[in-house]
Amino acid sequence: MLTHFNKDGRAKMVDISNKDKTVRLAIARSSIQMSNQVYDAIRNQKIKKGDVLSVAQVAGIMAAKQTSSLIPMCHPIPISGVNITFQWNELTEAEAIELVIRAEVKTVGSTGVEMEALTAASISALTIYDMCKAVDKSMVIGSTYLLEKSGGKNGDYKRNG
Amino acid sequence: MLTHFNKDGRAKMVDISNKDKTVRLAIARSSIQMSNQVYDAIRNQKIKKGDVLSVAQVAGIMAAKQTSSLIPMCHPIPISGVNITFQWNELTEAEAIELVIRAEVKTVGSTGVEMEALTAASISALTIYDMCKAVDKSMVIGSTYLLEKSGGKNGDYKRNG
Amino acid sequence: MLTHFNKDGRAKMVDISNKDKTVRLAIARSSIQMSNQVYDAIRNQKIKKGDVLSVAQVAGIMAAKQTSSLIPMCHPIPISGVNITFQWNELTEAEAIELVIRAEVKTVGSTGVEMEALTAASISALTIYDMCKAVDKSMVIGSTYLLEKSGGKNGDYKRNG
Amino acid sequence: MLTHFNKDGRAKMVDISNKDKTVRLAIARSSIQMSNQVYDAIRNQKIKKGDVLSVAQVAGIMAAKQTSSLIPMCHPIPISGVNITFQWNELTEAEAIELVIRAEVKTVGSTGVEMEALTAASISALTIYDMCKAVDKSMVIGSTYLLEKSGGKNGDYKRNG
Amino acid sequence: MLTHFNKDGRAKMVDISNKDKTVRLAIARSSIQMSNQVYDAIRNQKIKKGDVLSVAQVAGIMAAKQTSSLIPMCHPIPISGVNITFQWNELTEAEAIELVIRAEVKTVGSTGVEMEALTAASISALTIYDMCKAVDKSMVIGSTYLLEKSGGKNGDYKRNG
Amino acid sequence: MLTHFNKDGRAKMVDISNKDKTVRLAIARSSIQMSNQVYDAIRNQKIKKGDVLSVAQVAGIMAAKQTSSLIPMCHPIPISGVNITFQWNELTEAEAIELVIRAEVKTVGSTGVEMEALTAASISALTIYDMCKAVDKSMVIGSTYLLEKSGGKNGDYKRNG
Repeated sequence: MLTHFNKDGRAKMVDISNKDKTVRLAIARSSIQMSNQVYDAIRNQKIKKGDVLSVAQVAGIMAAKQTSSLIPMCHPIPISGVNITFQWNELTEAEAIELVIRAEVKTVGSTGVEMEALTAASISALTIYDMCKAVDKSMVIGSTYLLEKSGGKNGDYKRNG
Repeated sequence: MLTHFNKDGRAKMVDISNKDKTVRLAIARSSIQMSNQVYDAIRNQKIKKGDVLSVAQVAGIMAAKQTSSLIPMCHPIPISGVNITFQWNELTEAEAIELVIRAEVKTVGSTGVEMEALTAASISALTIYDMCKAVDKSMVIGSTYLLEKSGGKNGDYKRNG
Repeated sequence: MLTHFNKDGRAKMVDISNKDKTVRLAIARSSIQMSNQVYDAIRNQKIKKGDVLSVAQVAGIMAAKQTSSLIPMCHPIPISGVNITFQWNELTEAEAIELVIRAEVKTVGSTGVEMEALTAASISALTIYDMCKAVDKSMVIGSTYLLEKSGGKNGDYKRNG
Repeated sequence: MLTHFNKDGRAKMVDISNKDKTVRLAIARSSIQMSNQVYDAIRNQKIKKGDVLSVAQVAGIMAAKQTSSLIPMCHPIPISGVNITFQWNELTEAEAIELVIRAEVKTVGSTGVEMEALTAASISALTIYDMCKAVDKSMVIGSTYLLEKSGGKNGDYKRNG
Repeated sequence: MLTHFNKDGRAKMVDISNKDKTVRLAIARSSIQMSNQVYDAIRNQKIKKGDVLSVAQVAGIMAAKQTSSLIPMCHPIPISGVNITFQWNELTEAEAIELVIRAEVKTVGSTGVEMEALTAASISALTIYDMCKAVDKSMVIGSTYLLEKSGGKNGDYKRNG
Repeated sequence: MLTHFNKDGRAKMVDISNKDKTVRLAIARSSIQMSNQVYDAIRNQKIKKGDVLSVAQVAGIMAAKQTSSLIPMCHPIPISGVNITFQWNELTEAEAIELVIRAEVKTVGSTGVEMEALTAASISALTIYDMCKAVDKSMVIGSTYLLEKSGGKNGDYKRNG
């Protein structure tokens, strides 16, 4: 059922040489939850010209391009576009703030870019952790998942809810 | 308050040239939630010699070594050891299974290895997603956070609960 | 006669912009010879769940994707599949065991993937050496060569014998 | 006016999925100015078989392949050819020598290879600095710019003068 | 006289195993000249939250960490700090604007970080070119050189003028 | 007996944080066998200024620095020197020529550099194959092994014969 295994039962990179090149899109989402103190530090720094989110976003875009070096069975794919956006949510129950990261990746290729979108979102979240960990090490990177994908013969996917 | 900014308010890699080299440890945790169908696929493949977790673990260890190439303000650190372990949990309410990934990284260096441990755990989780996504694209990478760190003059950290 | 040189006699990356994209396959072979003691260690570890060959195989697949970063005049090629398999041979005269590594690489591209297959096989062999060198440093990586290639207008190649 | 920004005003990798693949060429130029002493060292070494320029040229070709890992918003492009050539000029006024580096890059792709050519030229120049800096640290890497580009629907470019 | 050659006259990575680890600093400088039109585009974008210089600076810091992968005979050095700053100059004669990039790198190591500083400055300049080339391809990356270095037994260096 | 496995029987990067930093040396050897026709092409090109061996040597030195990115359980080691040398042997029985590649790597570190030396030798051999394969695809990369190592508490190693 798992496609990444050869007849000896060992992992392989699946052969996609017979698949057509089509425009493919994937959108993934990650998040990071932080205290109000960290939130204030990020917002204040930004007003003073520095910008944690700008660094995180560059990191995410560059990571999308490294996906096939990081994920062993992932095909190298010439990405044709990446866009990362951010949204702040208040988490009233916990008196915390959540930053939602949305990474959208496009390609014209023989396989999808789900892993590129997920990797971009994850590395953006990790970069925010890195730049704020001197303030608070207890930040949590929240759920990371695929929001949607399109392109390719296996049909489109859109997450419920 | 954020240390990664220079006097112009732009991001910098913080100078650690005056910090002592000490033994430092960090342990991070990630997880991935999957349906029973994916769980069965992983377990069956393993019995047939293939092993999704083995690939994920190699990916995590290799990613730990790439951390400073991925996280922009992260210092290059000569890692002296990485150990990744897995634990399966049943999530009864959702009729799903959770795989918990624990990444432990050590170094003798001038700064901590929190980012290396978090990156190792994240990339392990992403690798499992990659190898099982043909079965189910709705898997969710769960909370990713630091469990503990030790070494360095800023004191040790251990997560509550 | 050598094509990798410009009119000043210096190395260049040959221009392939006018070559057609076709399905191309290359299969390479390497091997590593080891004592019975190392062989037993690998086999025992495997029974205990660990698996040297699994790590070597992931390393080979990942190395195939790095080929153009390693071999200076090699074109970057979007690999469309990699499969690495292993076979144990007894070498009766030397009371040693030989592990043969076979790496098969496919692409749809303008140039062949011989170097990708050879690099995958070589790095797999080196990984086995690395993981077993604490037991025996005298292991020898044996002959490494191209078994066959197909695709492209220069005709197919199949090694004799 | 700048195309590398999304609607939130943050940097993105521009979507090129709708652009046609055409043959594209870019030629860039850099230079390095050095004292007669450094010049003599390079020339003498070459006669003795060593060759600073040969190392610089390999570095430039390999750097062209890393361009999209170095320049954050640059698309990964499968380069189809790179040729780097050198020319020595005497700078009579300064009693110095200038080495001009010319890097020509080709691809069949959806976007141009200006950055690949500029990166190849720059890294070649930096490599020469590295290999000669023990003799003289005051060498200057001179102006680096695009000489020409062709291919793509935005028209060709050729530098004046 | 050139130290990077072995007794056969071929390039080598010089042995520094007997050199002491000391704090070392290097500061390099590059620049990019642009039309008023490009200058206005950069400044306007920044007001709208986007920031070309922020991306260039992240690129420079990340490139400093890749120096030994780019410059063949360069030793891998665990960088302990990088700071990149910018300064705008009006070039009245040409009705152009020059952006000066200053990269400061520190390490505790056995060899200097001149190449890391020069690489950081060069890649920052190239990133600015990349993000503005849709407006004007005739931008010129100006002189790139070492401003100063300190640390190590060969004495400090400070550029005249 | 194999040290690269954790208590679950899975691969890990062995912890070396308690090992002393000492000067360590490793020397490895590879070779490539070629027809007289290939040999003549290499020699002629060299006379015309191009130099296959020079490219192979740069590739080997750069690969030594990538070893820990290629070999999964290998520790990142700051290499302090690499020297690659070549020797031509006539193989009279086969009317072929063998090029022997010898790679010597030094470090001051907590673990040895055997893998760096073996990787440097292997990638040098693969580079020669790449640059000559248009002339003859049947070249064979010969035995690759460790010649000697020194430094570290486990004692020195010198290959017999």
